[in-house]
Order: sequence, then structure tokens, then C-alpha cells
Amino acid sequence: MDEHLVELEKTLAREMPICTAMGIEVAPWQDERLAMRMPLDVNRNHQYSAFAGSLNALCTIVGWGTIFLLLSREGLAGNIVIRRSKIRYFRPVRSEEIVARSLPAEPEELAYFFELLRSKGKSKLDLSTEICDDQGPLVTFKGSYVVQDK
Amino acid sequence: MDEHLVELEKTLAREMPICTAMGIEVAPWQDERLAMRMPLDVNRNHQYSAFAGSLNALCTIVGWGTIFLLLSREGLAGNIVIRRSKIRYFRPVRSEEIVARSLPAEPEELAYFFELLRSKGKSKLDLSTEICDDQGPLVTFKGSYVVQDK
Repeated sequence: MDEHLVELEKTLAREMPICTAMGIEVAPWQDERLAMRMPLDVNRNHQYSAFAGSLNALCTIVGWGTIFLLLSREGLAGNIVIRRSKIRYFRPVRSEEIVARSLPAEPEELAYFFELLRSKGKSKLDLSTEICDDQGPLVTFKGSYVVQDK
Repeated sequence: MDEHLVELEKTLAREMPICTAMGIEVAPWQDERLAMRMPLDVNRNHQYSAFAGSLNALCTIVGWGTIFLLLSREGLAGNIVIRRSKIRYFRPVRSEEIVARSLPAEPEELAYFFELLRSKGKSKLDLSTEICDDQGPLVTFKGSYVVQDK
């Protein structure tokens, strides 16, 4: 696993205890998209599908982790905070292992994000994350994250 | 504590283990609004403020619990599912005990919700939830819940 992914996983384990309680793990990097997984078991609801709050937490942290990696790879360190998000739950999530994956940001949005961070010390990026099965999306999430120079 | 609140607390403890891990508890009923609380400690992030995912989970379950209580008090039982939500995080949440409270639904929306549930066996209600301090809202949440007859 890439050193930045290892650092991300360590950061979650060290500093965000509820991610450990949810069993959230960084999944192997695929197609330049960050994915994280968690087991259904501890995150189940009264119907033995995944609790919406856990699904939202997973998507929130995938977006956060994506920005963490984008910064690390540029040798930057910033304080990353989510400002708002919206989520849709299309169908119950029932797989034993639940995977959420970020969608790539548009190259020009990414360029603008870094330009603003370097010039102003503060920037913003909107990121989408999905949980899918063979039939398509089960959950779609969009988060707006703010980054401030450390 | 009112019997319906006790039943709600038991349901969470029995069927949604991550709510127990987050330390989510039903708070005493106040001004006809449902409130739940959780400690900062297990829900902290890398900055020792509350993890956005935990805040969202708390708000999601307060909305769910509000509908659970609305149904119980009418002697109804339904399957409650959240379909979508949006949330804004205005300021970091740093109090040792975090409380989220639902806002009352409009009386005519509530009447329509029950009318549809009784006639069609299925209905929908939008509910807002807030986390506040003395200066005003720290987090505002709006969830759209669907209920189906059991």
C-alpha cells in the first residue's frame, strides 16, 4: 500500500476512534479513486441493512481522506473541514462488506483548488462519493470541504 | 421517562449497535421536541471537535426517533426509512456533551402525513434537527423519511 494511504489509515486509527468502532478501513487504491470499507455487522440497523448514519459517516470520511491524499501527494498539509453535505439513500445496503468510493474531481476544479490554496492559504472543494452494487448506486453523497493552510 | 421514550431507547440499544458505540442516549423530552445526546470523547476528530459523521448520525437518528414517537403515540407501527438528507456544519462542536433536537413539524404537514399513512399505508415526512449553543445553531439538518405500514 502506498505510503500516503498508510498515513491516512494511521491518522484515522489514532485520531478518530469512532471510525475504528465502525470498522472503517482504507481499501486498496483503484482507478485513482479512494475507497473505504466497513462491515455491515456493527453498522446494521433494525432491519439488518446498514444504518444511514454509518453510511453517511463512511462517505464523509472518504471525501475527507481524498483531500488528505490530494494534499499529501503535493507535499502540502492543511486543516480539512467539511462544511455541508447532501446524501440520497436509494436502496438498502445489505452486503456484508460495504465499500464507498470517491468520484474524481474535474481537473480544472482541482487546478483551481490548488491555485487558491497556494495563493490565499485557504480553498474549497466539492467531492462526490458513491456506494454501488451491480445494479448501480445505492447511496450518492456530495460534500463541500474547506482546507486551510497549517 | 415516558413509556414510548423508553421503548425508543431500548430499540436503539437492541438493534443499532453503533448508536451504543457512539454513546447516543435519548435525552429527557422537552417542549414536545425529541432530543438525543452523545459524548464528545468517543466521537472526536483529529482536532478534538466532533466528527461530522457522528454529528450526522446523531441528527439522522433524532429524526428517525421523532417519527417512531409520533407513530407510537397514535398507536401505529410502521417501517421508517430515511431517503435523503442535507446538513450544514456552521462551527465546530466542542462541548463534552452534544445534544441534537428536532424541530416540530408543521401541524398541517403532520395531519397530511397521518392521513396518507392511514389511507395509503405509506407516507413521507420532512424533519429538521439542530445542534445549538448559546450563540445559535452549530449544525442544521433536514431529513426526508418514508414510513410504510408494518
